Amino acid sequence: MAGGLVRSDAQQNRDRVLVAARAEFTAHGPAASLNKIAQRAGVGPGTLYRHFPNAQALLVAIIAEDVAVLCATGRELLGHPDPARALRDWLRAVAVHATAMRGLVATESLEAAGSALAGCHDEIRAVAAALLERAGAGDDVDDVLAVVNAVAWASERLPDSPGRLDRLLELVTRGLPKPSW
Amino acid sequence: MAGGLVRSDAQQNRDRVLVAARAEFTAHGPAASLNKIAQRAGVGPGTLYRHFPNAQALLVAIIAEDVAVLCATGRELLGHPDPARALRDWLRAVAVHATAMRGLVATESLEAAGSALAGCHDEIRAVAAALLERAGAGDDVDDVLAVVNAVAWASERLPDSPGRLDRLLELVTRGLPKPSW
Repeated sequence: MAGGLVRSDAQQNRDRVLVAARAEFTAHGPAASLNKIAQRAGVGPGTLYRHFPNAQALLVAIIAEDVAVLCATGRELLGHPDPARALRDWLRAVAVHATAMRGLVATESLEAAGSALAGCHDEIRAVAAALLERAGAGDDVDDVLAVVNAVAWASERLPDSPGRLDRLLELVTRGLPKPSW
Repeated sequence: MAGGLVRSDAQQNRDRVLVAARAEFTAHGPAASLNKIAQRAGVGPGTLYRHFPNAQALLVAIIAEDVAVLCATGRELLGHPDPARALRDWLRAVAVHATAMRGLVATESLEAAGSALAGCHDEIRAVAAALLERAGAGDDVDDVLAVVNAVAWASERLPDSPGRLDRLLELVTRGLPKPSW
């Protein structure tokens, strides 16, 4: 943390705004009110707008936080004793992330934020490539990520069925190297 | 054919309207003009409306035609000497059909036509179940169709890449019984 053990006031305000924004976007979608977010975070609207000029900047920051957590998990899994299991576990986390992200924002606003999120995609891609290589899978990393994302999308759209996402993931990853347990 | 070797005038008009509608929808999407379709087919608007009261009825008829061809192909493949190859070939045809269908119509109008298209889905499901069973695959037919549709969707959305649909299908069907050639 820059400057020592205590997060700066600015950093603390930014964190509080992000927590509040996550709650408001989850409840109201991309149309959530920025003023309500500021209120919920206990900061003035000016403080919010200084950090995040618009709703899209907030959404991008939330997604970037999620991707950072996802990728940290993936890098830890690079030390897992069963590389094929590590790969499968992480691909499942990617599918869950893809669904959560689509739940948070409308596709339209995400696509407009394309370039801001390109860095997130590159980070996910790099972790996926490392896990695939360690598991000895010869598949193209973009193909594998496309399939995982597609399966997440399909299980969102289909009628609720317990365990469907896991069944679909099992089906599409059955051709990857096998876990030893 | 009812009534002998020659198709009735009504049937011929209906066929001509469907050919014209396919061309107009392909060019202009679901907003295609019904009057232009009638003109292209060489029939009066009254004749068109007698067969198809609105654009959705036309779209449903086009899709039903495509599904009939798709399922006839699937039933022929039930006689193919390599059941695993037959299954794969037909799943590829299903993916191509799913993409063509999405190209033809907006998701909205399709969902509104839900019940009219339920029969199409049942027909595809029955053929898929027969091909899966003959290939000795123990997978749930709805899961397999969900995965194939998801992969078609993914390859539509991703930047054009030659052979991508085939690579994705290979990846997701690698866990199914193996073709012998």
